[in-house]
Amino acid sequence: MLYFNCDYMEGAHPAVLQRLLETNLEQSFGYGEDSYCDRAKEKIRQACGCPQAEVFFLMGGTQTNAAVIKGYLRPFEGVIAAESGHINVHEAGAVEACGHKVLTLPQRDGKLQAEELSLYLEAFFRDPSSAHMVQPGMVYLSHPTEYGTLYRKEELTRIREVCRSYRLPLFLDGARLGYGLAADRADLTLQDIASLCDAFYIGGTKVGALFGEAVVFPKGGPKGFFTLMKQQGAVLAKGRLLGLQFDVLFTDGLYLEISRHAVAMARRLKEILRQNGCPLWIDSPTNQQFVILDRAMRDRLEGKVSYEVWQERPDGGAIARFATSWATREEDLAALARLLKE
Amino acid sequence: MLYFNCDYMEGAHPAVLQRLLETNLEQSFGYGEDSYCDRAKEKIRQACGCPQAEVFFLMGGTQTNAAVIKGYLRPFEGVIAAESGHINVHEAGAVEACGHKVLTLPQRDGKLQAEELSLYLEAFFRDPSSAHMVQPGMVYLSHPTEYGTLYRKEELTRIREVCRSYRLPLFLDGARLGYGLAADRADLTLQDIASLCDAFYIGGTKVGALFGEAVVFPKGGPKGFFTLMKQQGAVLAKGRLLGLQFDVLFTDGLYLEISRHAVAMARRLKEILRQNGCPLWIDSPTNQQFVILDRAMRDRLEGKVSYEVWQERPDGGAIARFATSWATREEDLAALARLLKE
Amino acid sequence: MLYFNCDYMEGAHPAVLQRLLETNLEQSFGYGEDSYCDRAKEKIRQACGCPQAEVFFLMGGTQTNAAVIKGYLRPFEGVIAAESGHINVHEAGAVEACGHKVLTLPQRDGKLQAEELSLYLEAFFRDPSSAHMVQPGMVYLSHPTEYGTLYRKEELTRIREVCRSYRLPLFLDGARLGYGLAADRADLTLQDIASLCDAFYIGGTKVGALFGEAVVFPKGGPKGFFTLMKQQGAVLAKGRLLGLQFDVLFTDGLYLEISRHAVAMARRLKEILRQNGCPLWIDSPTNQQFVILDRAMRDRLEGKVSYEVWQERPDGGAIARFATSWATREEDLAALARLLKE
Amino acid sequence: MLYFNCDYMEGAHPAVLQRLLETNLEQSFGYGEDSYCDRAKEKIRQACGCPQAEVFFLMGGTQTNAAVIKGYLRPFEGVIAAESGHINVHEAGAVEACGHKVLTLPQRDGKLQAEELSLYLEAFFRDPSSAHMVQPGMVYLSHPTEYGTLYRKEELTRIREVCRSYRLPLFLDGARLGYGLAADRADLTLQDIASLCDAFYIGGTKVGALFGEAVVFPKGGPKGFFTLMKQQGAVLAKGRLLGLQFDVLFTDGLYLEISRHAVAMARRLKEILRQNGCPLWIDSPTNQQFVILDRAMRDRLEGKVSYEVWQERPDGGAIARFATSWATREEDLAALARLLKE
Repeated sequence: MLYFNCDYMEGAHPAVLQRLLETNLEQSFGYGEDSYCDRAKEKIRQACGCPQAEVFFLMGGTQTNAAVIKGYLRPFEGVIAAESGHINVHEAGAVEACGHKVLTLPQRDGKLQAEELSLYLEAFFRDPSSAHMVQPGMVYLSHPTEYGTLYRKEELTRIREVCRSYRLPLFLDGARLGYGLAADRADLTLQDIASLCDAFYIGGTKVGALFGEAVVFPKGGPKGFFTLMKQQGAVLAKGRLLGLQFDVLFTDGLYLEISRHAVAMARRLKEILRQNGCPLWIDSPTNQQFVILDRAMRDRLEGKVSYEVWQERPDGGAIARFATSWATREEDLAALARLLKE
Repeated sequence: MLYFNCDYMEGAHPAVLQRLLETNLEQSFGYGEDSYCDRAKEKIRQACGCPQAEVFFLMGGTQTNAAVIKGYLRPFEGVIAAESGHINVHEAGAVEACGHKVLTLPQRDGKLQAEELSLYLEAFFRDPSSAHMVQPGMVYLSHPTEYGTLYRKEELTRIREVCRSYRLPLFLDGARLGYGLAADRADLTLQDIASLCDAFYIGGTKVGALFGEAVVFPKGGPKGFFTLMKQQGAVLAKGRLLGLQFDVLFTDGLYLEISRHAVAMARRLKEILRQNGCPLWIDSPTNQQFVILDRAMRDRLEGKVSYEVWQERPDGGAIARFATSWATREEDLAALARLLKE
Repeated sequence: MLYFNCDYMEGAHPAVLQRLLETNLEQSFGYGEDSYCDRAKEKIRQACGCPQAEVFFLMGGTQTNAAVIKGYLRPFEGVIAAESGHINVHEAGAVEACGHKVLTLPQRDGKLQAEELSLYLEAFFRDPSSAHMVQPGMVYLSHPTEYGTLYRKEELTRIREVCRSYRLPLFLDGARLGYGLAADRADLTLQDIASLCDAFYIGGTKVGALFGEAVVFPKGGPKGFFTLMKQQGAVLAKGRLLGLQFDVLFTDGLYLEISRHAVAMARRLKEILRQNGCPLWIDSPTNQQFVILDRAMRDRLEGKVSYEVWQERPDGGAIARFATSWATREEDLAALARLLKE
Repeated sequence: MLYFNCDYMEGAHPAVLQRLLETNLEQSFGYGEDSYCDRAKEKIRQACGCPQAEVFFLMGGTQTNAAVIKGYLRPFEGVIAAESGHINVHEAGAVEACGHKVLTLPQRDGKLQAEELSLYLEAFFRDPSSAHMVQPGMVYLSHPTEYGTLYRKEELTRIREVCRSYRLPLFLDGARLGYGLAADRADLTLQDIASLCDAFYIGGTKVGALFGEAVVFPKGGPKGFFTLMKQQGAVLAKGRLLGLQFDVLFTDGLYLEISRHAVAMARRLKEILRQNGCPLWIDSPTNQQFVILDRAMRDRLEGKVSYEVWQERPDGGAIARFATSWATREEDLAALARLLKE
């Protein structure tokens, strides 16, 4: 069976695991107060071009999103997101559990539009009953989006400007950030993101780590963020494990290198699927590919190729998501190509 | 100036106030443990045809909605509502502050549709990732709706059936319930509502009381509801004040009588507005009337007639809400008619 | 039966009720945007000597405490209170429901001590693991306390100094504030309180109103406090009712006048009880009196005099609380004296 | 430098890491739906003698405590704990962040007493104002406690009986459970615990794993616990990592074996410290040892031996905690002994 279901089916990049093995019996203090974390933070600051950034390590995406959002908002404020945003759909109400509403705007290819954001905010503050409503308190977006798409630099810059006018912090969910940075048509660099956002995170779980996300606050984070993380159950006792993984990933450009591999594999995957009559549902430049499979194709793949059904279609077909990752092998794609040619 | 902005511009029905005056120096125990509350509960149970119902008195709608919803839901559950539902729009995130997501469905004339509810629930539980999503835990609807419209008995019955299949409690927000019961085309009685819903409230604030809402749980309420009310700050120290008001309102049919007056006034209001060239935006059988005012009409009313702008229109006109209440006087409508004829 | 159970057994002071009656059919906008509220706020600002103060009206004590505390704290912060503080004991966890821990210190006659507060804070911030603990974020005290006692000006000033060193807002729960201001030995005036506290409330429910508390933020309140109140279900639709009551109470010194009456009644009550062999449990200068009743005395009072059992004693006696109020009549005390002489 | 600060200074037991290495590139589905988790759950069920138990894997102690407590309580309920309980002290208010009060009872050697628990509950439900107070909803205890002490089987059985009378779930925090099971004087087995508690967790982070805690609900857990975990950010994407670690630890008795080693090391440590004039502060049979160090001893250890200062003493001495773990080596203790003899 060939698996393309998601980008977290394997463990960690071998270099990460090797380092874990070598240092396993070293002793260090807990909760992130160790030299591995210090080193990893320093490398991330350099990669972001932000010597003053505050960096924190958490274990997974849902807890990272909840902690950052809780860190910024006052109780009566909500977070603006595209209706397809991960926090609005697949995090079991983690934001609401912190007391905050997710204020949704329509998505366009999974993205927020600066223009719509601006119109919404303008209308909100003009509404005489706005004091009776959840106040917009920050903006969340994901890059790559849940549909694998990317913001152009110009798009993010315009969103940034709207945020600035309304004094709303801008938070970028980078669960798959590597695959966004490494995409062909990408024009947003890590430095761009650090200069345009108030907070973002560099996903490790889906990009080479066993687990772990690195939150970056380029201009400093919300007061008391460590204690808030602790309260959320998001502080790892053996914090060193997080520091070590990001230290390896940010040494000699490994994070980008493995991301580029995943994107190259995704490009190949896309070609194979198109050549075999599966139209794209959306044109994604990153490691997630969305194609339309008809009934016959689903039957052919049954029991041989595993993917995620994104949406069932009335005719028995489906929109399917295929994901590659740092761990996808050329031979897997070759096998897929062969299988489809038969 | 003639005011038609809302249905809570005056104090209480004179009979209510008179009773407050007469009993002012009586001594009673606090928090609802008094004979006025006992009597009012008994009368409400009778009016609902539910001798076993549990009844609680709270001070206002937002706190009532939040307490009932918090009372029913487990932390990972959300409440289904029409996107126009009051809890989703004008309660400043009170439900989310309790940790719960409002799961919205499209509204049709302000109403939920049984069919759409059913399709949503079916799709939700078929989705293999549903365990990662907020679980639907109850259904909220308002009657009359925020648009003044009413559920037919058949509509509510079908929603009830969907709720039953999925074991979801059904909660009806009756902030303006009197005006719904008294409407011309209404075919839902208080007894019907009590037999179809797991919880509902009988609005006092907008229907003759100074303030107060009576929550009815026909088959008994969630465990510990009094303590939950206390935690929400929704227990009035001088609970007698709430009991007394509902006692008066539910004596000799006063609640329905004053509601009928408001509806009659609304009917007259609607005629006046239509006869003077203001088309209806929605056809409401209750005390709230929504009409389209063009620019010229708005100018004519300026400084003479006060109403609520529901939605601005690009051409300078507006959708306007006019509300009558138990306190609306015939001479106010006569004055409006004169003014529009000039 | 003579009732001394609490200070909220009757309705409102007749002047308040009279004014409600006179204005009942006046129309006004909702949610506190009316001239009664404006006027009451202005009078309260004057009485406090704070022309810049922000004033808000809420319905009851629990919701007021929760809203103010939620307004000030960040999610990982708690509120320091005496272990006997109302928020720690009798509010059903309203503060915790907002996500915040109540950090308790021992009480001395119901009061916090500046010295203990200082030692606690010093130790907290010296503790190397303090980042793993709930951060002290504000200080709550009640005046009069739950035991009827009062802070001396010098005590409150010293607490204020500790708060200032640690930048902790100081919040005074004045549910019975009038009875504190009117006490014989009181040396804290309303102006003192306004100059020493960041937030406090002037209790109406127990001091002449039907219901209502006036929160005062002498130097301005937390951002978005109105929306936070709305979210907490603490905004009254007919906000005018709150403004009107405080307008009456703060006209011609009525609030203090009726408070002085209650305190005089309490003084007389205390004498009667002591002269009849009931030792004081605590020496309270305000409207709540705590005495020790032995078994025999409890039997004598049974069915004739009602009071609150504060604490059962193993010998069948009890610590009992007797409360007077603005509504206590001289003849009630005369009746009590007669009854005890028999 | 010799480090005895805590039991999570190293990585994982080599067998755990070896298995991670071997399986690193295997593909598996996320979120715990993999064969490693299945296998580990089965082994844990067998070790507990509970074939019907539900088992869940989480990442750390704070999030586990919060999730289990949130899973059991209704909003107006609190959790009873010793005042020294971890949830009350060092979890930054994680329980309160879920809306629940921690209801504290005095600790005796870090333990709750059945008798005190019973008296508290009896008094609570006899109090006529109990409906205004946080309702006791479950009981939390830690075993070993924060002081390294253990419950005797008879003690836990009596607590269980009190819980049963009041229908309160009993939850045991086993962050260091292995060290409790392996202690000399222990008479509580894993099967005992499973038969006496409604929920408990088997700590991995401090007992041989990189991270991870296994929650066991012997009679089945609260409804929807997986979604609640997800909401709390407590579901690991690569859930396999947790299953795999517990699979290794529960194969061939490894968990108990390495725990016994730690306890043997602690016994040796205790002897060394006592023989060198450091009196015990508390007599712990597990891996944490608490001794009193005088000023001179602290000076001697300075820069050579690292431990945790539990409490500073006015004379410059301190109560110190020394912890051993599965990773403590005999030569470390030999080095300590030599150093103290010099």
